[in-house]
Amino acid sequence: MALIVQKYGGSSVGNVERIKRVAKNISNTRSQGNQMVVVVSAVADTTDELISLAKQINPKPSSREMDMLLATGEQVSIALLAMALEAINVPVISFTGPQVGIITDNVHTKARIKQINTEKIEGELAKDKVVIVAGFQGKTIDDEITTLGRGGSDTTAVALAAALKADLCEIYTDVEGVFTTDPRIVPKASKLDRITYDEMLELATLGAKVLHPRSVELAKLYDVKLCVRSSFVNKEGTFVVKNQLIEKDLVVTGLAYDLNVAKIGVFDVPDEPGIASKIFDGLAVANINVDMIVQSAMRNNINDIAFTVPKDDLDKALQIVEEIGKEIGASEITHADDLAKVSIVGAGMISSPGVAAKMFHILAENNINIEMISTSEIKVSCIIKSNEVEKAIQALHDGFELDKINS
Amino acid sequence: MALIVQKYGGSSVGNVERIKRVAKNISNTRSQGNQMVVVVSAVADTTDELISLAKQINPKPSSREMDMLLATGEQVSIALLAMALEAINVPVISFTGPQVGIITDNVHTKARIKQINTEKIEGELAKDKVVIVAGFQGKTIDDEITTLGRGGSDTTAVALAAALKADLCEIYTDVEGVFTTDPRIVPKASKLDRITYDEMLELATLGAKVLHPRSVELAKLYDVKLCVRSSFVNKEGTFVVKNQLIEKDLVVTGLAYDLNVAKIGVFDVPDEPGIASKIFDGLAVANINVDMIVQSAMRNNINDIAFTVPKDDLDKALQIVEEIGKEIGASEITHADDLAKVSIVGAGMISSPGVAAKMFHILAENNINIEMISTSEIKVSCIIKSNEVEKAIQALHDGFELDKINS
Repeated sequence: MALIVQKYGGSSVGNVERIKRVAKNISNTRSQGNQMVVVVSAVADTTDELISLAKQINPKPSSREMDMLLATGEQVSIALLAMALEAINVPVISFTGPQVGIITDNVHTKARIKQINTEKIEGELAKDKVVIVAGFQGKTIDDEITTLGRGGSDTTAVALAAALKADLCEIYTDVEGVFTTDPRIVPKASKLDRITYDEMLELATLGAKVLHPRSVELAKLYDVKLCVRSSFVNKEGTFVVKNQLIEKDLVVTGLAYDLNVAKIGVFDVPDEPGIASKIFDGLAVANINVDMIVQSAMRNNINDIAFTVPKDDLDKALQIVEEIGKEIGASEITHADDLAKVSIVGAGMISSPGVAAKMFHILAENNINIEMISTSEIKVSCIIKSNEVEKAIQALHDGFELDKINS
Repeated sequence: MALIVQKYGGSSVGNVERIKRVAKNISNTRSQGNQMVVVVSAVADTTDELISLAKQINPKPSSREMDMLLATGEQVSIALLAMALEAINVPVISFTGPQVGIITDNVHTKARIKQINTEKIEGELAKDKVVIVAGFQGKTIDDEITTLGRGGSDTTAVALAAALKADLCEIYTDVEGVFTTDPRIVPKASKLDRITYDEMLELATLGAKVLHPRSVELAKLYDVKLCVRSSFVNKEGTFVVKNQLIEKDLVVTGLAYDLNVAKIGVFDVPDEPGIASKIFDGLAVANINVDMIVQSAMRNNINDIAFTVPKDDLDKALQIVEEIGKEIGASEITHADDLAKVSIVGAGMISSPGVAAKMFHILAENNINIEMISTSEIKVSCIIKSNEVEKAIQALHDGFELDKINS
């Protein structure tokens, strides 16, 4: 008897018919002799609607009350899904995150899971029940309701799979698996049968919206067997696995892009120890994720620093940087938000020199200007103008022959 | 410095503008130097929408999952109201019922409050914050989420006022106070300045939807000073007080009616001890409230029993009664659901004989047939056809001269 954790995203439970279909799918998996824990997101658009309602009342609500508000979305989903299972005579019980013992830190709207108490779930599994858990949410040790941020339901699922030592964690979504790139941009994009944690992590971080990067990190850390598949089409999805399970390491496995990119430039700052840390500490305290950082070669002990942040955080980041800029004597602070990041990812890159050069060559051939570059062992990312993303992805997909990936 | 508990119903927080108005009202009361605890219901219609959604998925959802679903309604309200107060710089914190320590029994969808832990609220009041609490909900000692049933938010407010020893409990609603009867039926109906707990209790039980009877019971038991007033019009409402505060005891203070009445008749049951208890125990176990009970004079050791139940519970009650009917050898079981109850209420009735007779006389004059009668020290209720309610109320209001009540 296997223990399977399934996660269904917001579009998978988007209306009454879909909720019933999910219930049927759970019932089928269970009747094959599996124990089931099911994580559900808020019904599609609910979270956005709640946020929009909140903003009408208060343009800047406290994050504590935002969590209080948003946590209701998943609570509705778990109750409805439990009712759908009751209707087809599957024994079931639902729990909110706080109720089931998902303990987080106290960073409201972006909380991290600290601990999961599994007794309650294990007790109900022993009674042969399907256990439904609200994704995206937990509580602090002081009983404050927290949410994990966007994509947090994936994280809940993987964390539960790790804590319960589940045999498999299936992430059901509205796509059939992980593709070489976004099929809406490149119709020839192919579904991958397998991908490594590291590749998935790069793809996830870089904006392929299939899996939240934190969930992939967690899966890698606790060796959780992950599978991404469609809740609408009954087809095998993409397995996310350790390196050794990949039979042939492709040089480039996938392309990702991210439109949520803004750039801030800080000019003429003294080349002294601690200057960069002043800027980035300030941003870290405000919980702003800095992605790429480029520091120019110094001239006369003066530096220019440029970095990217999520577009949503640009205003907050600018405010902080302008304050610190005065303090450290920066001559000018610039910003731009018409940018995007395109990336190529592949575990095979480590042993294949020239992949980055090929990428730059393809972009240059298509007259696409590169504003910033960042590389890791298994990915190369370029910041370009956002209106050139589609052209870039199309050209790179052709150039790296990703349509032939499963052949 | 007074401690005031305010409760706002669903229509009072029915849209963004109303939520902002409620926040302003709270801020005004606070700036007069009061400590504030505020209980909020779900935004108007939310609960009904959630129930309708649930029924599309499962016509008979378990009451546990129903509570899981319904509890989200108030959680949305408390978060939005807290945000509205934040927007006008009032220090505030919101809590769900389970979170703040409202402990109930485990009768899902109809739970009763067993205990309230006030430390959390008192801690936040000491920090000078307005404390917002979700009405209608609590948790069992096993952390299961429960709801208190319709009108439960009034009960939450009064229970909190009792536990916190508040100086006043204000119930804000969409009417200006308690009226002699429904102003929609009798335009001349007058607002009462004061009413006793007992009178209010009869009026509440009998279907005047201003206050939930459980909340009035609780207020009487713990001597909570209650006030019912409008959240739309800034006028003094109706104070609900102990007997001695009423200056003149009116013979009849108010008229109430209830359209949620169904009757069940059980014919030819043996006149033996335990027969009635068999029927009513069965109904009690199913949590069905039986209201009036009439047992006919016996003939040949055979009885007829008739009683009323809420119309919503008729199907469930019939099923139970038919089963027990077979067991006890009843010859026939009948039912009717085109009935209503009209009642006259007044603390002065105790010392005024002939009030019941006057009521029967007025109804007879208007050709209204009485199907069942029940009386207490301060009320007389008659079951009549539901299509005659309006005529009855109009005639009784005129007959008892209730339009002259405050003069």
